[in-house]
Amino acid sequence: MSEAAETLDGWYSLHLFYAIDWTTFRLVPEDDRHAMVQELQQFLADKANARASHTGDQALYNITGQKADLLLWVLRPEMKELNIIENELNKCRISDFLIPTYSYVSVIELGNYLAGKSDEDPYENPHIKARLYPELPHSEYICFYPMDKRRNETYNWYMLPMEDRKELMYNHGKIGRKYAGKIKQFITGSVGFDDFEWGVTLFSDDVLQFKKIVYEMRFDETTARYGEFGSFYIGHILELDQLDSFFAI
Amino acid sequence: MSEAAETLDGWYSLHLFYAIDWTTFRLVPEDDRHAMVQELQQFLADKANARASHTGDQALYNITGQKADLLLWVLRPEMKELNIIENELNKCRISDFLIPTYSYVSVIELGNYLAGKSDEDPYENPHIKARLYPELPHSEYICFYPMDKRRNETYNWYMLPMEDRKELMYNHGKIGRKYAGKIKQFITGSVGFDDFEWGVTLFSDDVLQFKKIVYEMRFDETTARYGEFGSFYIGHILELDQLDSFFAI
Amino acid sequence: MSEAAETLDGWYSLHLFYAIDWTTFRLVPEDDRHAMVQELQQFLADKANARASHTGDQALYNITGQKADLLLWVLRPEMKELNIIENELNKCRISDFLIPTYSYVSVIELGNYLAGKSDEDPYENPHIKARLYPELPHSEYICFYPMDKRRNETYNWYMLPMEDRKELMYNHGKIGRKYAGKIKQFITGSVGFDDFEWGVTLFSDDVLQFKKIVYEMRFDETTARYGEFGSFYIGHILELDQLDSFFAI
Amino acid sequence: MSEAAETLDGWYSLHLFYAIDWTTFRLVPEDDRHAMVQELQQFLADKANARASHTGDQALYNITGQKADLLLWVLRPEMKELNIIENELNKCRISDFLIPTYSYVSVIELGNYLAGKSDEDPYENPHIKARLYPELPHSEYICFYPMDKRRNETYNWYMLPMEDRKELMYNHGKIGRKYAGKIKQFITGSVGFDDFEWGVTLFSDDVLQFKKIVYEMRFDETTARYGEFGSFYIGHILELDQLDSFFAI
Amino acid sequence: MSEAAETLDGWYSLHLFYAIDWTTFRLVPEDDRHAMVQELQQFLADKANARASHTGDQALYNITGQKADLLLWVLRPEMKELNIIENELNKCRISDFLIPTYSYVSVIELGNYLAGKSDEDPYENPHIKARLYPELPHSEYICFYPMDKRRNETYNWYMLPMEDRKELMYNHGKIGRKYAGKIKQFITGSVGFDDFEWGVTLFSDDVLQFKKIVYEMRFDETTARYGEFGSFYIGHILELDQLDSFFAI
Repeated sequence: MSEAAETLDGWYSLHLFYAIDWTTFRLVPEDDRHAMVQELQQFLADKANARASHTGDQALYNITGQKADLLLWVLRPEMKELNIIENELNKCRISDFLIPTYSYVSVIELGNYLAGKSDEDPYENPHIKARLYPELPHSEYICFYPMDKRRNETYNWYMLPMEDRKELMYNHGKIGRKYAGKIKQFITGSVGFDDFEWGVTLFSDDVLQFKKIVYEMRFDETTARYGEFGSFYIGHILELDQLDSFFAI
Repeated sequence: MSEAAETLDGWYSLHLFYAIDWTTFRLVPEDDRHAMVQELQQFLADKANARASHTGDQALYNITGQKADLLLWVLRPEMKELNIIENELNKCRISDFLIPTYSYVSVIELGNYLAGKSDEDPYENPHIKARLYPELPHSEYICFYPMDKRRNETYNWYMLPMEDRKELMYNHGKIGRKYAGKIKQFITGSVGFDDFEWGVTLFSDDVLQFKKIVYEMRFDETTARYGEFGSFYIGHILELDQLDSFFAI
Repeated sequence: MSEAAETLDGWYSLHLFYAIDWTTFRLVPEDDRHAMVQELQQFLADKANARASHTGDQALYNITGQKADLLLWVLRPEMKELNIIENELNKCRISDFLIPTYSYVSVIELGNYLAGKSDEDPYENPHIKARLYPELPHSEYICFYPMDKRRNETYNWYMLPMEDRKELMYNHGKIGRKYAGKIKQFITGSVGFDDFEWGVTLFSDDVLQFKKIVYEMRFDETTARYGEFGSFYIGHILELDQLDSFFAI
Repeated sequence: MSEAAETLDGWYSLHLFYAIDWTTFRLVPEDDRHAMVQELQQFLADKANARASHTGDQALYNITGQKADLLLWVLRPEMKELNIIENELNKCRISDFLIPTYSYVSVIELGNYLAGKSDEDPYENPHIKARLYPELPHSEYICFYPMDKRRNETYNWYMLPMEDRKELMYNHGKIGRKYAGKIKQFITGSVGFDDFEWGVTLFSDDVLQFKKIVYEMRFDETTARYGEFGSFYIGHILELDQLDSFFAI
Repeated sequence: MSEAAETLDGWYSLHLFYAIDWTTFRLVPEDDRHAMVQELQQFLADKANARASHTGDQALYNITGQKADLLLWVLRPEMKELNIIENELNKCRISDFLIPTYSYVSVIELGNYLAGKSDEDPYENPHIKARLYPELPHSEYICFYPMDKRRNETYNWYMLPMEDRKELMYNHGKIGRKYAGKIKQFITGSVGFDDFEWGVTLFSDDVLQFKKIVYEMRFDETTARYGEFGSFYIGHILELDQLDSFFAI
């Protein structure tokens, strides 16, 4: 009989994707547009206080291609704080020119397939705490994709015995560790929260590493037999002081 | 040969999801916006009379992420009352700024896989009545998702003998009972009414419990082999007296 | 080798679903709105002549939930008459505020799996004529859904021998007959006409009967193994003299 | 090992589907609307010269239901001529009120599964030429649908030996021939050009024949096991001199 | 155990598809429209400098049918350059009349299934360099489609031993080589970057060759069993000096 692995859960997570409605934004007088960008900068600067006080974090990227223009990723200790931030953003004046294109609701998650057994409270382990409540890297590039484990007729992840899943995840993890130093990876769990079971958010200064790791993992049995993927989003970092030129027409 | 389980059916159910068109709403003078919110508050307060007289109930939540901003869940003794309420809401002035994003038509349902046999009319059983015609909890968080039982080539729920389904549902129910006190669960049946076969609506003050129960159940054979899921919606409660600040720009 | 069953085909059928654009409709002066509703009433009253002369029929329902607000179902002896009626409706002034959401093109069909053999021309059989060219009931509730027979790798309806299909359909029909008096059922064939193979339109004064029959049939092998369903639409009758209040804002 | 059958390829083909934006069109003064229809009539009359000189053909139908209002089917010797015609149509004033809903890019194709062997150049065979460069019938009704051959795990058309495909296509063709005189059928190949592999366009004065042939073929193994279908479109002919009344509001 | 093939990666790639909003564009005074086209021409002429200096390339085609009107394909040494170019294009005035319809993010890729073993650095091999950093042909026609390798229960590309994949790719490549001189093919890898695993971009002066190669390959086991395709786009070249007449209304 199958058995769920315990998970450790950290900050709640909201990925917000927006396309910019340039056509309408262009109709706004330049001074006004500038004021709107300043309001957005102020909004984001306020949110950055959470990073300073280690009560959350956020990241802003410019998505490549037409799926979206912006990705704002927000992490907070409570789900309801994400609602508040999303609602605040919706009320920023520039949001009149931002078209929601996709969002993802989840929570930073560490699977404990690989966990050693101990009496220690894992939430007190400093290494684990740093991963559950992370300070996000300011890497050049971001990659986000949601995924499921398949429940096919022959290959059904959730009917595998715990031992088999543990071994598959161990091998899977070995590939991930080869990319240490090149890629920072964050797994967020979304079972019961959103349409896929996990979100994967990767950071790197070398965008090609995203392709390398995802491609190499595709040949790993865990992914080859059991992985099901949603859309992939790639973006380049957008610093607060770049917003003015980014939005300038 | 297979055999349908009898169901007990209570109040009819309508989940209405809306996104707010903030861009256009902002164009409305503030006084007018305030009047619109008041009209909505009055509409919802009127509906709350059904709760007082135990002739229905309703709940309003602020959905996290971009799938919707609002979820209004309405329960009533007759389907046609749901049509009337939906039409009334459409005619509220604020609905000009609410964009329908998803809805779900169903009826509160108790499967009787677990029912003991008796001569008693179950509709007269006070415990069952309380579940068929429920008073909804005012929990902090809500979770809604629709689901089907799979009819695959190898694993076809509807071709299983009654005994097998009964046993699977019994084990499935045991997981649910572990969350008693943490989660309140409402099952609504939608076979013949909407695109999935059931809707699941969960309430909890601890949003993480939604993830825990759905994840644990995914390893249960009933779900692992036979469960097929639609979109998951998560929201935070929106009290009537919060509507003013919620809609304030 | 497989063999197609002969079908008997009656009136052509067009299901038209519309959402109402209340936001824009509200901008129209009340007198104008009233005139538009009167024009629609006149249009529908004219169409009702076909019912009187038994050269067609139609039905108007208010759909529950956000898939649509209105369903107009039209039956006529020629397909091109359906084009004309749809075009006429499009030119009614109120159609500027009706957003097409779904439509279904088909023809009233009687499968002859169950037909006895005889020399009689079935199109002259009064019982069959009444079903091919029906007078629609003015029941409180309507249910519409399109469906296919599956052609999976193991279970492929169209590769079954005629005898097997005949037996499956016979058992399937037995369930249907249990609901005689509670539900009136109309099957329309749409192979070659629209995206599914059949449309099912049910009428009842007790909306719960729709759930009961569809649920019971789901355990029948014909449906459990071979049925594939599109969206389900549920609605409440909208009489001509209710249109004024229905559209009043 | 599998082997592709040679195909004979004739005129390039573009099916263009449009919905009419009646709401906006109604705002145009009647004289202007009339001038726009005249411009469209002139455009179509010009295109009709290709038919006269046998350098192409076209057909215009009024689609039943809400998938589209108009289907314009154009055949020309070069693909780039189709681009030019589509661009010209886009620039007609009435196109401001035509909403593109679907299109299909393909080329008239004759499979040679059934071809006898000979030294003759098939492109010089008058019978074949007439089918590759056809004069379209002005039938009352049109039916269009795109289709694929399945590549499932068990039943994979493209892994069948040529001999098996030849036999399947031969039996399939026998059904088609039963409808000679009732239906004119045009197959267009779209592998590499559009999302399905073939388009099927049928013409008949009796719309029921479309249902009969598609239904009968569904029981043929070629279709039952290997056919995968896109959307079905049905329409009634729209003659140039009917455009005025068709567009009149 | 399975093993990923090494890939060689060249320029980053962005396919941008746009539909033209002729309805709104027509409202712009002719002089203004002309100025917008000139700005676009200047933008594209500036980008063409990358071709001259061999630091990238681009191509502009007019897509046939309603999926899009324009395809702009851009190649650059860094992913972030693609973001900049996309943002610049969004700010061109004519972009107010371009509706994004699809985009694809990838990188020019050479699989090394067929690579001989050597000590040579492949990135220094002139033949390979010419393919990784290509000068695009100005052929009359373009064809683009994205694709995956299937991971079905029976046929799972990523669970095949390297030797089997090598042999399948070798046979697959033999078909491609038959079209040398008729078609130029560019493979871009998008694992981790976009929703499919590869993009295929073909150029030819004879559009029928696209159909021939894709059809012939469909019978090859690599494609028949393992190929999964997205949408196919076909277009005709649009030279800079044709933009004026192309956009003229």
